[in-house]
Amino acid sequence: MNNSVTVENKLVDLKAILPEKRILMGPGPSNVSARVLAASAMATIGHLDPAFLALMEEIKTGLRYAFQTKNTLTFPVSAPGSAGMETCFTNLVEKGDKVIVAHNGVFGKRMCENVERLGGELVEVAFAWGEAVEPAKVEQALTAHPDAKILAFVHAETSTGVLSDAAALCALAAKHDCLSLVDTVTSLGGVPVNVDAWGADAVYSGTQKCLSSMPGISPVSFSSKAAAVIKARKTPVASWFLDLSLVMNYWEAGAGGARVYHHTAPVNAMYGLYESLRSLQEEGLTAAHARHAHMHIGLTAGLKALGLTLPVAAQIRLPQLNVVSIPEGIKDTDIRRYLLKNFNLEIGAGLGPYAGKTWRIGLMGNSATRENVTLCLAALGDALNTHGFKCDTGKALSAALTALKYSETNE
Amino acid sequence: MNNSVTVENKLVDLKAILPEKRILMGPGPSNVSARVLAASAMATIGHLDPAFLALMEEIKTGLRYAFQTKNTLTFPVSAPGSAGMETCFTNLVEKGDKVIVAHNGVFGKRMCENVERLGGELVEVAFAWGEAVEPAKVEQALTAHPDAKILAFVHAETSTGVLSDAAALCALAAKHDCLSLVDTVTSLGGVPVNVDAWGADAVYSGTQKCLSSMPGISPVSFSSKAAAVIKARKTPVASWFLDLSLVMNYWEAGAGGARVYHHTAPVNAMYGLYESLRSLQEEGLTAAHARHAHMHIGLTAGLKALGLTLPVAAQIRLPQLNVVSIPEGIKDTDIRRYLLKNFNLEIGAGLGPYAGKTWRIGLMGNSATRENVTLCLAALGDALNTHGFKCDTGKALSAALTALKYSETNE
Repeated sequence: MNNSVTVENKLVDLKAILPEKRILMGPGPSNVSARVLAASAMATIGHLDPAFLALMEEIKTGLRYAFQTKNTLTFPVSAPGSAGMETCFTNLVEKGDKVIVAHNGVFGKRMCENVERLGGELVEVAFAWGEAVEPAKVEQALTAHPDAKILAFVHAETSTGVLSDAAALCALAAKHDCLSLVDTVTSLGGVPVNVDAWGADAVYSGTQKCLSSMPGISPVSFSSKAAAVIKARKTPVASWFLDLSLVMNYWEAGAGGARVYHHTAPVNAMYGLYESLRSLQEEGLTAAHARHAHMHIGLTAGLKALGLTLPVAAQIRLPQLNVVSIPEGIKDTDIRRYLLKNFNLEIGAGLGPYAGKTWRIGLMGNSATRENVTLCLAALGDALNTHGFKCDTGKALSAALTALKYSETNE
Repeated sequence: MNNSVTVENKLVDLKAILPEKRILMGPGPSNVSARVLAASAMATIGHLDPAFLALMEEIKTGLRYAFQTKNTLTFPVSAPGSAGMETCFTNLVEKGDKVIVAHNGVFGKRMCENVERLGGELVEVAFAWGEAVEPAKVEQALTAHPDAKILAFVHAETSTGVLSDAAALCALAAKHDCLSLVDTVTSLGGVPVNVDAWGADAVYSGTQKCLSSMPGISPVSFSSKAAAVIKARKTPVASWFLDLSLVMNYWEAGAGGARVYHHTAPVNAMYGLYESLRSLQEEGLTAAHARHAHMHIGLTAGLKALGLTLPVAAQIRLPQLNVVSIPEGIKDTDIRRYLLKNFNLEIGAGLGPYAGKTWRIGLMGNSATRENVTLCLAALGDALNTHGFKCDTGKALSAALTALKYSETNE
């Protein structure tokens, strides 16, 4: 046997690399509960094992609850959110199809890239960073482009912390005989996502935001109208891996009750996702949304009391992702490194035009707790004071907890 | 707040769905060790956390050892093996590029699908199921198509359990000024994979076969020649998610030492992969290959003593994946269900023309043990006798253990 082992190395113990824990208050991943971690560490079984097939059905059921949909075609893509985005675009867009993308941040622009790479005809409706997608301006584009096939937009823009009116935008798409394609990566579980009530045709999400499962999976859902459009495609989907006509033979039993092997599903990550869906169900969507809203009220009251400003208008702010302006004279990385080193606390950097100018403080899923709001304000106050920005941490904590209590009491 | 929660459901406890354990002797996933499962359940941290960036470097180092390569461009794709395949094709193939695919099973045919979906000009060199890719016939195609850009083939065909001569095929590709693109999904860790010694230009693998990590990640490696070809592309890559020009800004530090966010990596699955690479390093590649070879000798001796036949010629058999003909009168699913129900033992079904006619018995990674060989033969003997195929289980066990001991002693 010729093994020719010549490339040698010495790997170090994983425990020597990883911190014991982090408090994750960035744009995701959020903190994964011990319960979800334990679920994901249950014994790996085969991706065609009858027990795993049964679990797949349960996962679809749980996702329908999270998405508030009865869509048959609801399942988790075996790859991160950006692959979920690509699943929607690569299956729905054929060369030459006109797609209107209304964008107001990084993830809307990523949608544009998807359309262009697929040879679609892109119509951009651009909004400034920090603004919501405005239905009136979108309707102008829909009217100007009656041949458009799809209207795509991001419900909760992770780069700016802005919420757009998905119900209104999906209704406009339907009115103009367009399919609606909605990014719900950051919204799902944090604010209401009502796929059926909206009449959304294609939605995708992530597991590592307000569902607080480990990253790597992307739940998607398609209306029967979208499913019919995919079925009627004239050209094959560019991606074999993401081709729904193949993937669905694995996720749905065929006429004879049989599943057809497509790829090997990330079995353990699916255990984790399932357990996070159970947690969500136990808390209840309404309670989960309320918790995010309350923590946001507490956090923003505290941030303001620290003397910080939030560039996004209050009525379109995402509770689960708070964009904060970095004060004059303060260096972004100094503060984030300080928080990580001294408090094991991660907050997010700004992206694109917001890079170096803002932080993104996440209150997602398990990370949206009173103790995290409290720690974040206390730690941030210390970091700012240490770096020359004078602020009153005690006042901020008091403002936060008072606002939070008031919000919870007057629900 | 309008939550409109109307779609309700009740999810059951995960423990009520999943079996306590399975003995995984199919075509993958193989059994994941408690150590790897525990690693994957360590606390989730951010995908841009300095600790995670350090882990990414260690993972690349560990993969270079597994692949026996010094290739800089070596990293794990955040999705299953079929996405690893697609990463290689979508980055290397541009519309109109001529690609020779030498195929001898399901996964070689999947390569053909990739080429066609990308608008490449496909040249097929087909071999019968159960045969290896024959270099002489491939060289004829290379000579007939001097304008071919890529020669692609599967090193260890998972559908047939056949090993092809990767060293010879890569050398032919180089001789004819072609890039070589090699599927090492089932081979990596089970038989020698020597990327640098072969001169392979693009390889991809999976984590759930002989590495025995959880499914969902696909290690890839590209030669500097392949990297240059990708850099010189005239058209954008169809897939945003798999576009290496973007992915690599995350996996490799840029000029300023900074990483650029691309997608959220499956952090916990990476912990598991890393721990499986540490296990491999501790055992050593040479020892791991020898273990697979020994167990294969034991298993096949036992299978023959049971009266079963192996359709693949001995000199091209994969030790880690043993294709066994189903005896006349025996129904495939009867036996597999019996093994699963009575012994928690999973063996694999046949695919394509082998469906219903063969089983695939895996001896991959952690599943390649003396106790598994023993249990598999004992359980299979019982299953066959129960279903009317008379065989001598005692004789089979004795033959297996004798052959195994002889193999280990005379290494």
